[in-house]
Amino acid sequence: MVADIQPDLELAESLFDGLSRATRRGRGIVRDSYGVGEQAAHDLARSTATAIGLEVEVDPIGNLFMTLAGRDRRAPRLIIGSHLDSVPQGGNYDGAAGVVAGLCVLSALRRAQIVPDWDLAVMAIRAEESAWFDVPYLGSAGAFGLLDPSCLTTARSDNGRSLEETMRQQGFDPEPIREQRRLLDPSRIRAYLELHIEQGPTLVAEGLPAAVVSGIRGCKRFRHARCTGEYAHSGAVARRQRHDAVAATVALLHHMETVWLRQEAAGADLVLTAGELFTDPAMHGPSKIAGETRFVLDLRSLSDATMDAVAAEARAAAARISADYRVTIDLGATSDSPPAVMDARLRARLRGLLEHPFEMASGAGHDAAVFAKLGIPSGMIFVRNENGSHNADEAMSLDDFAVGARALLGLLMDFPL
Amino acid sequence: MVADIQPDLELAESLFDGLSRATRRGRGIVRDSYGVGEQAAHDLARSTATAIGLEVEVDPIGNLFMTLAGRDRRAPRLIIGSHLDSVPQGGNYDGAAGVVAGLCVLSALRRAQIVPDWDLAVMAIRAEESAWFDVPYLGSAGAFGLLDPSCLTTARSDNGRSLEETMRQQGFDPEPIREQRRLLDPSRIRAYLELHIEQGPTLVAEGLPAAVVSGIRGCKRFRHARCTGEYAHSGAVARRQRHDAVAATVALLHHMETVWLRQEAAGADLVLTAGELFTDPAMHGPSKIAGETRFVLDLRSLSDATMDAVAAEARAAAARISADYRVTIDLGATSDSPPAVMDARLRARLRGLLEHPFEMASGAGHDAAVFAKLGIPSGMIFVRNENGSHNADEAMSLDDFAVGARALLGLLMDFPL
Repeated sequence: MVADIQPDLELAESLFDGLSRATRRGRGIVRDSYGVGEQAAHDLARSTATAIGLEVEVDPIGNLFMTLAGRDRRAPRLIIGSHLDSVPQGGNYDGAAGVVAGLCVLSALRRAQIVPDWDLAVMAIRAEESAWFDVPYLGSAGAFGLLDPSCLTTARSDNGRSLEETMRQQGFDPEPIREQRRLLDPSRIRAYLELHIEQGPTLVAEGLPAAVVSGIRGCKRFRHARCTGEYAHSGAVARRQRHDAVAATVALLHHMETVWLRQEAAGADLVLTAGELFTDPAMHGPSKIAGETRFVLDLRSLSDATMDAVAAEARAAAARISADYRVTIDLGATSDSPPAVMDARLRARLRGLLEHPFEMASGAGHDAAVFAKLGIPSGMIFVRNENGSHNADEAMSLDDFAVGARALLGLLMDFPL
Repeated sequence: MVADIQPDLELAESLFDGLSRATRRGRGIVRDSYGVGEQAAHDLARSTATAIGLEVEVDPIGNLFMTLAGRDRRAPRLIIGSHLDSVPQGGNYDGAAGVVAGLCVLSALRRAQIVPDWDLAVMAIRAEESAWFDVPYLGSAGAFGLLDPSCLTTARSDNGRSLEETMRQQGFDPEPIREQRRLLDPSRIRAYLELHIEQGPTLVAEGLPAAVVSGIRGCKRFRHARCTGEYAHSGAVARRQRHDAVAATVALLHHMETVWLRQEAAGADLVLTAGELFTDPAMHGPSKIAGETRFVLDLRSLSDATMDAVAAEARAAAARISADYRVTIDLGATSDSPPAVMDARLRARLRGLLEHPFEMASGAGHDAAVFAKLGIPSGMIFVRNENGSHNADEAMSLDDFAVGARALLGLLMDFPL
């Protein structure tokens, strides 16, 4: 391909404005999965794609493909994707930025009258957020026939209507999900690229506009951990005779922080969170030793081996501390989702396209994880975003977006690597 | 006085049986403060006292005095006291054991036709438990005019009736409380003695039937401690950028355990408890970093200086950990109750009266604290009790009770020390 062309940032600006106008409800954005908000975003993307001369196609479950035709229409295509739905009262950029990036890159190629060697498709993916149906990646996992068909009975969180009923109302077909039918063939996809706002504060702290994503962390979560001791008078029982569930839980969580620090010092990728922790409000009291706690211990890493090692340390510590504190810590089973590592060659090339080649893990899940786990070479770009995501205060600057979109365009121009 | 007389254990056994029969409701005991259960216990004590030849008198707020008249009726008297109320579904011994001990000791003196040098009175104290009116020591503090008159509006926890209304219904007079009038003159009380079951497991662990109480621990309680951080995605925020309220709270409570261990090693009397600890159920989530915790930190010691030092360490640690973890830990104000040290001479004599002279602090509060804080020489005996107190499974053996009652009788025989 030819160098020195730039993403169509006027188109990007106009699309972000249009999306905000069409889907803002009060302070925040509401693009409800398989609902009117998401559909309004799809309608805007579709009309824009048509206007810039892309082919447009919608699959049976509602994913929208906007394609710049390549020289060899039978060659495996390259997909630039992200989702167009949002959480309730979310921001304008989570998801949409990736679709807008794809469109403003294809618009630039089209304006420059560049015909790629193979099809380049922007995929506006349905229903990535689990806020509406409590199932993540409905659109991308559904396109690959990977969903458990029982998800069709899941009720939408706001109106209680099932996924099946909601899809039919919107004119889509739940049958491919029921039949676990593949709408996309992984072997026919050359690569998957996704631009997304960063959902944490790392790039703001680093003072960088964009980053290459090394991978999407897997999660190993002790969802129902519990410590059982004995309730007793806080004044009347000596330390050595206590069965203090709070003291034991504190000892365990403190130990896990030292494990985290050790892993961090050794260069391992890990985050470790106890986001829920509580004594029993029906039983606890200001002058009682607590006889029970419940908590969640959430481990995330790019490495299954790290998560396995840290989970084993947690279990060993729970046993040791149970004995030391005369309580029973039952961590329970873990719910696991494996990490998805981005393609090494795509990562290396993307690093070369950024002025500051910064690489970081994604803690949150993205559609790219679905593609990567199928063996499709996948690459992701994070764009700096203030105030986190999943709230009305998301703030991405168009300048930062342009840095990410230029890297995306640069990668397309470099293919095959 | 004359030696070789023994407490009237038949009377004790019969009284414990009678109290159990009169006030058991299902599995547990219900002797509700200023209610029918407490009154039934007072009626039984009163009839027993009359039968053994004691003078009987009830003060305006319902405390019952059962007196063995002394040679010099105008000399300051000695009071043997405890309470006859219980928590809802409590046990048969918490409180009652002290009144029964007093009666079986006076019965023995009476049978032996011993006339003491001064009046010996068993005081059956009203409403010690705060379970019913959320005010501790109503009877003893009320007798000394020490209650805040606003307590008269406190609603009973089960039926919502005010203390004032409840007292009037039972035929008692709330006016002395309103006027903060003294019904008892501290200068007219030679000493106060109380036998009580131990409410913790120490004597069971030590294998001893009874102990001398060194004092009643004071309490310094951070009742409304709070840590404020920032909610964020558990996977997307690196350790150094977190404002994790749980991690900071764990760090503080872990530090306070090391402070406790250090105080313990230095020989200080201290117990330290976080009995309530919780993230916000409306905001927390399994994949969220917690933005808030609330907790209670309860310090108890026989020494005000120890509590002050440990509270200062807690405040310093809260400030340091707030900075380290980028959160705000606000421990808030403490609610304080000072320790009450038992009289040194009474303690020494009681130790001499036990085969194994074991001394221990009381973590729970007792009416003896009210008397001691007024400068009245006070002494307490703990009797071994299984399964803690404030529950239906309290278990004190009559043999252990006899050890305590013999020490009480021995002390009376030795007066003046």
